[in-house]
Amino acid sequence: MVKRVSVKDIAREAGVSIATVSYVINKRTDQVIAPQTVKRVEEAVARLGYVPNLGARALASRKTKLIGLMIPQTEKEQRLMFSNSFYGEFLSGLEYEASKKDYSILISGSRGQQSYSKVAKTRSLDGIVVVGVDSPGDVEDLKKADIPVVLVDYWGPETGVNKVNIEDKRGGYLAARHFLDMGHRKIALATGYLKAQGVNAQRHDGYRQALQEAGIEDDPGMIFSGTVSYEYGLELGGIIASMEDRPTAVFCTADILALGLIKGLAKASLRVPEDVSVIGFDDGFLALAASPELTSIRQDVAKKAEVSAQLLIDALDDKGIAQRSVVLQVSLVERGTVKRI
Amino acid sequence: MVKRVSVKDIAREAGVSIATVSYVINKRTDQVIAPQTVKRVEEAVARLGYVPNLGARALASRKTKLIGLMIPQTEKEQRLMFSNSFYGEFLSGLEYEASKKDYSILISGSRGQQSYSKVAKTRSLDGIVVVGVDSPGDVEDLKKADIPVVLVDYWGPETGVNKVNIEDKRGGYLAARHFLDMGHRKIALATGYLKAQGVNAQRHDGYRQALQEAGIEDDPGMIFSGTVSYEYGLELGGIIASMEDRPTAVFCTADILALGLIKGLAKASLRVPEDVSVIGFDDGFLALAASPELTSIRQDVAKKAEVSAQLLIDALDDKGIAQRSVVLQVSLVERGTVKRI
Repeated sequence: MVKRVSVKDIAREAGVSIATVSYVINKRTDQVIAPQTVKRVEEAVARLGYVPNLGARALASRKTKLIGLMIPQTEKEQRLMFSNSFYGEFLSGLEYEASKKDYSILISGSRGQQSYSKVAKTRSLDGIVVVGVDSPGDVEDLKKADIPVVLVDYWGPETGVNKVNIEDKRGGYLAARHFLDMGHRKIALATGYLKAQGVNAQRHDGYRQALQEAGIEDDPGMIFSGTVSYEYGLELGGIIASMEDRPTAVFCTADILALGLIKGLAKASLRVPEDVSVIGFDDGFLALAASPELTSIRQDVAKKAEVSAQLLIDALDDKGIAQRSVVLQVSLVERGTVKRI
Repeated sequence: MVKRVSVKDIAREAGVSIATVSYVINKRTDQVIAPQTVKRVEEAVARLGYVPNLGARALASRKTKLIGLMIPQTEKEQRLMFSNSFYGEFLSGLEYEASKKDYSILISGSRGQQSYSKVAKTRSLDGIVVVGVDSPGDVEDLKKADIPVVLVDYWGPETGVNKVNIEDKRGGYLAARHFLDMGHRKIALATGYLKAQGVNAQRHDGYRQALQEAGIEDDPGMIFSGTVSYEYGLELGGIIASMEDRPTAVFCTADILALGLIKGLAKASLRVPEDVSVIGFDDGFLALAASPELTSIRQDVAKKAEVSAQLLIDALDDKGIAQRSVVLQVSLVERGTVKRI
């Protein structure tokens, strides 16, 4: 084990006291230190290759410069849901913004006994970003951690936490409205589980509103709810293809679901958009990779990550803001998967 | 700020000394403690909701239970390369394995002055996994961190580090061999930058070997090298479509490149596999999402992540192994993008 260079070593090398080294390294402005002394210390730091130990510093300042990113897992395997490229894009954006302010990202799932607040305490996290909280119980647990929190994609009424959302309901409305404008009346919804506080319930609400405005009654047989995965979309393609009274259009609440659906329909010899029209949600690169390119509700994931990082870092800087909530715009991007009928 | 429950609080609650609490919590076997005392301490821990602070424990034991995962960034934006689903899959698998042994994952890019070894020191990482090291200089820098390292997808000759690879050269060989078997002679290679120690150079070597065995001479005009991205694939589709003496087959060293290529060819009215045959590499879900489904060289990313975690954790457990190297199998998965000519 190579010995770590310590503040003591720097002091010896520069011929000054340990306190002086500490003042210089921590850029303290409440102490006057002669410029030539500062220079001597800085040269010693460079010469010996001193790197501050954030662990030790954390104990002193109670700051670790560590942000936890909690991401849901797949139900079956308890692996993080990175097959949906949304999460990867979000992580990239968050890490990019956080690194500008010297924060690092700790990745964590929440597995059974290992609650959010426990991870936060164990790791002395400065703050937490949670994407897709599962339940109000989890939010209560998060508050116990007593550090700044940003909830992404959560529509609960809780106060005391920061929230970043997109116009989920409007997204659902825009998709269904577009189908209606193109002459469709039998419009299905393919979605993840519809949890009360979740984004899918909002998108479902928007979809229902558009249908109601058009005088179309609720039809539970047109709602398909499962995991947000390529595999579920694939399965659904087969199910929808075999329906006697099949929908002419399907709004999928994620592009990855739409991709699976299109493939599942193709396996049953149904073409998109000739036989079934499809709209996705996210408009990530998957939408462009689809063939034909996917009509989708666009959300700006990079922006979502950027705003999440900003809200958390502002809260950590303690700017006197108790909580903030940001809702980002969505829009419909027309491509090749919707046919006028 | 809610006060954190300390070892002192537990001692008071259980009516024992701080040393006794510490022995119980740390499961020390070198001290004999009466079972009823152990029970009293454990009950106090449960009652007060005590969670050990890994930061404080780290300073004492010099272990943080923190593994750094270093991931390369896109050249342009310095964002982590999560648009390629390979990285997300790898992260999911690594986090899953590491969490079983109570390790957490710290995500980091390496941006200019922020070298790998500096991140390792600043964060007191226990170990590092690096995917796709850029240069031998980076490996030297990593060694400076003086902690166990696992290099994934690096073919340099360095000793003193653990390495996890797949049969990259064989993958390139299998792809080119399959094209040859199907009657192709003008076979192009679409790849990321060909760095001496990188996986693409290996895949290129395998491709060349197969062509040489078939008596086909090297043709630099058939090698296309750029970023491993959907966008580069797309651009390449246009370039290849406009060639006078066009290849009949293209081996792409990543599925994401193949997806872009297929779309780029389609924009120029060339169909796959009717006009151009394509083979990808990775065989992640993107290969199945492609239309037609992509013939690809399969690597087991979950296995790669699992082995990487195991090698690192074994090294951290100090089992007397100086270094290990594992090479995982690849195979050709035939689907719909190669035509016999």
